[in-house]
Amino acid sequence: MTGVTVGVDLGGTKIQAVVIRDQAVVATSRARTPRSGDPADVIAALAASATRTVEEAGVSADELGAVGVGAPGAVDVVAGVVVGAANVPGLEDRVEVGPLLSSALGGVPVVVANDADASVVGEHRRGAGMPYRNLLGVWVGTGVGGGLILEGELWRGRGAAGELGHVVVEADGRPCTCGRRGCLEAYSGRVGWERRTRKLVKEGQKTRLLKIMEERGSDRLTSGVYARAIEERDHLACKLVDEAAWALGIVLASVQNLLDLEAIVVGGGLGDRLGQPFLDQVVGEMTPRLFVRRDPPAVLPSELHDLAGAVGAAVLAGG
Amino acid sequence: MTGVTVGVDLGGTKIQAVVIRDQAVVATSRARTPRSGDPADVIAALAASATRTVEEAGVSADELGAVGVGAPGAVDVVAGVVVGAANVPGLEDRVEVGPLLSSALGGVPVVVANDADASVVGEHRRGAGMPYRNLLGVWVGTGVGGGLILEGELWRGRGAAGELGHVVVEADGRPCTCGRRGCLEAYSGRVGWERRTRKLVKEGQKTRLLKIMEERGSDRLTSGVYARAIEERDHLACKLVDEAAWALGIVLASVQNLLDLEAIVVGGGLGDRLGQPFLDQVVGEMTPRLFVRRDPPAVLPSELHDLAGAVGAAVLAGG
Repeated sequence: MTGVTVGVDLGGTKIQAVVIRDQAVVATSRARTPRSGDPADVIAALAASATRTVEEAGVSADELGAVGVGAPGAVDVVAGVVVGAANVPGLEDRVEVGPLLSSALGGVPVVVANDADASVVGEHRRGAGMPYRNLLGVWVGTGVGGGLILEGELWRGRGAAGELGHVVVEADGRPCTCGRRGCLEAYSGRVGWERRTRKLVKEGQKTRLLKIMEERGSDRLTSGVYARAIEERDHLACKLVDEAAWALGIVLASVQNLLDLEAIVVGGGLGDRLGQPFLDQVVGEMTPRLFVRRDPPAVLPSELHDLAGAVGAAVLAGG
Repeated sequence: MTGVTVGVDLGGTKIQAVVIRDQAVVATSRARTPRSGDPADVIAALAASATRTVEEAGVSADELGAVGVGAPGAVDVVAGVVVGAANVPGLEDRVEVGPLLSSALGGVPVVVANDADASVVGEHRRGAGMPYRNLLGVWVGTGVGGGLILEGELWRGRGAAGELGHVVVEADGRPCTCGRRGCLEAYSGRVGWERRTRKLVKEGQKTRLLKIMEERGSDRLTSGVYARAIEERDHLACKLVDEAAWALGIVLASVQNLLDLEAIVVGGGLGDRLGQPFLDQVVGEMTPRLFVRRDPPAVLPSELHDLAGAVGAAVLAGG
């Protein structure tokens, strides 16, 4: 009996969990991220997600060998500590997610990793990146995250590598949530889009975006709202896509000129929704900016989609 | 008797050779790169450089264990082939530098590497980069070259990594010699400066640069001409320095945000000449663009200066 491993991807809105046995996903579950702002509630929700998913897999709790957690923010992987996960209420400061979750689960070993890192590990070991030893994962969602696999191993630098979303596209370009200007995610992330949309609407640009948002009963411009507007060929939405592809193309070409990777896997909430047509546009912007054009990197859509982070977290925990 | 290793750095204007014994440089020599356009002349000049430097070291030819060559252009390190070294007359196409030089030297093993790669190996193993396992070498000269050491090893990607000079700074910025626009080296390399200077002079900008060039009896705006003009606080020359530091700061911040390196070593003909004040300016442009500011990379001047490439080539050949 080999036992099972749980992987949990802790996001700003949801907690996605998977159970892995013999390298296969045997159960999944999803819960809402607590909004109370109390770290203990987040830990309890993670523990409940793990327990419930193991039950759904039809295995007993004592078969659970280890848990991997992917979390936003900076992660001290040795200590299992998450620092500054700004969009998870309660995790804005410093929380010992690993030790706390481990004791909530009766001592099961817990491994904590950055969510973008976990996702690229997921795609590399169980998804679109499997044929490659050197690849970049690009997660286009709320912001833009990145994860690097070099020579088959996750590249963490001194712990802060992979901040693809804050590679500079335009020196004094659009304001970014990080306080700087011209960062990739100001052009290619959902929050950057929302900011830009509201600004342009205020300036009088016509768009169906806010109408679609209202029709959906939402107060946020979600990926779904943008996807719908793009289907309707809303001018502003299409322009945002063009600009996002332009910015991503520039950054991916620069990364490729520096690292000469084999493959780039593109996923994330917005990336998955926009799909292959968006990838084609990104490749169209990237290719003319490659220094060596003979052998461009394969640019592939995510295969694991919103399970990438949870699967990768489980892999990092040995699953 | 351990024997000696020769390292040769083949540049567009000069051939720099060193002899290494017991990890120390025991002789150096410098010769002009042949202008005939015949590959055989380049090989003969490399062989002569190696032989003469060994003689200068006072060792007999049969003590020469191996030769390392750093060359511009794309290098197939397995075959010892140099492709498209545009600024070395005779090496514009494909030349089997390794095999040809080896047979010119009576069968001594020859290792060929890209010159930017060789230089970062030199600084990492024998220069400013010695305390670090993860560093970027930035060579600001005719163009801008880059070399990466990751986990103590030279990072070549699939053979074309390190093209830092063609990382995009401005999407539709200055024209680059590579045919694209907005590349780093259009702002921070000597040829980019020369192009920009001539354009601005044509547009009527006042500068002492062309005068200094004439006074030196040159028809090119060399690093020395720029260094002199900067000493005189020539407005145009100082503006070029500011813009070069700005462009380098942006690119180095982006690389750091992606890779989270320990150190960045800056050298090259122009970089060495501009020295610490320029480095301080680059750091000033880089720092505010770092995503994690707590622990910035060490930014250091080259220690080996114009010997970095030759020393690194020798190291790659086992010296």
